[in-house]
Amino acid sequence: MNSFGQDEIASLEKRFRANLINSISGFKSANLIATRSKEGVDNLAVFSSVVHLGAHPPLLGFIMRPTSVERHTYDNIIESGFYTINSLPAKMKAEGHKTSAKFAKNVSEFDATEFKPEANDPYPPFVAQSPIKILLEFKSDMCIKENDTHLIIGEIISLKIDEDLIGEDGFVDLAKAGSAAISGLDAYHQVLSGTRFSYARPDEEPKEIKYG
Amino acid sequence: MNSFGQDEIASLEKRFRANLINSISGFKSANLIATRSKEGVDNLAVFSSVVHLGAHPPLLGFIMRPTSVERHTYDNIIESGFYTINSLPAKMKAEGHKTSAKFAKNVSEFDATEFKPEANDPYPPFVAQSPIKILLEFKSDMCIKENDTHLIIGEIISLKIDEDLIGEDGFVDLAKAGSAAISGLDAYHQVLSGTRFSYARPDEEPKEIKYG
Repeated sequence: MNSFGQDEIASLEKRFRANLINSISGFKSANLIATRSKEGVDNLAVFSSVVHLGAHPPLLGFIMRPTSVERHTYDNIIESGFYTINSLPAKMKAEGHKTSAKFAKNVSEFDATEFKPEANDPYPPFVAQSPIKILLEFKSDMCIKENDTHLIIGEIISLKIDEDLIGEDGFVDLAKAGSAAISGLDAYHQVLSGTRFSYARPDEEPKEIKYG
Repeated sequence: MNSFGQDEIASLEKRFRANLINSISGFKSANLIATRSKEGVDNLAVFSSVVHLGAHPPLLGFIMRPTSVERHTYDNIIESGFYTINSLPAKMKAEGHKTSAKFAKNVSEFDATEFKPEANDPYPPFVAQSPIKILLEFKSDMCIKENDTHLIIGEIISLKIDEDLIGEDGFVDLAKAGSAAISGLDAYHQVLSGTRFSYARPDEEPKEIKYG
């Protein structure tokens, strides 16, 4: 195996280190976050850091650097208090990646890409092509002092999911939905149908749960 | 599409809501976190919430509920200051899920499952079967006031990766590594080889980056 110590990691070439460290945490969610500016321009950007925080209340978080490309997203969330998180279909991966380009603030990525806005007034739009669409109300902006990134926390206000994706017990079949996974900074993956296991107990082998 | 409003979500049956809300954030990383207690017992537990926070310094975060099944992990990290994050191979998904059972504190999941410890003294062990093994030093414990979960932040101290997984530019091929993705509370997925795209620019279609 290749080993890297703390000093070695710090002295790696910048881009190599970014690729390496962004890869090792594992597969990431692939979501499009839509926001609306004060001027009424809709912004859309791909994020790989959306993370589940809790189901009751229903909370999602995501990580952002306020000074980087996602600044429009950050500004719009703080100003308007609302945003939508929309699952990125793997078949639209190139379009999804394109939303990470530094478009001018008066340009809507809905115009610059093939993603279609689905009106949700007075809130920011959903992405019409997404099989899972979530409206959130901004709750907290926690600054991570170690590197000045932010954990943005939102509460789910409403939710739209293709009917045939929701199982009897509430499980949503993301593989059937065609949702992408992301790895590293720039890789988009299709994911195969998964294996579900029963609640784990110490003296019992996990049993498969049939679904779908 | 099925629509759920805020009140509907709040009034869903508890387990249905947990499955639903845990699914919609997208695919998640699949990692085994190893810790060591004061008494010298090694603990191992699967986590789906490890998230990249930054590359320089190299920081990873994960979400935990201190009062739930993962309490041993939390106590050990706070007490010892160190932990390892190890990529879960998809072919060991049943064993990975088994680590989420409530084993007694004096039982090591390394004894109760097929995962083998790889010594890393004086730090907690790595998981021998993992293609990506990360040693972290605990940095911060941020309480998320909205639901009393915690974001645990650690800095990478050392890193071991199978040589043939690291590309020329530092990208790590998680699909080739056989790393699992998780969805919902209990689904484990194999992920197909991905498509990488060049840095996105407004007036340019993303180009594929060849790798592997």
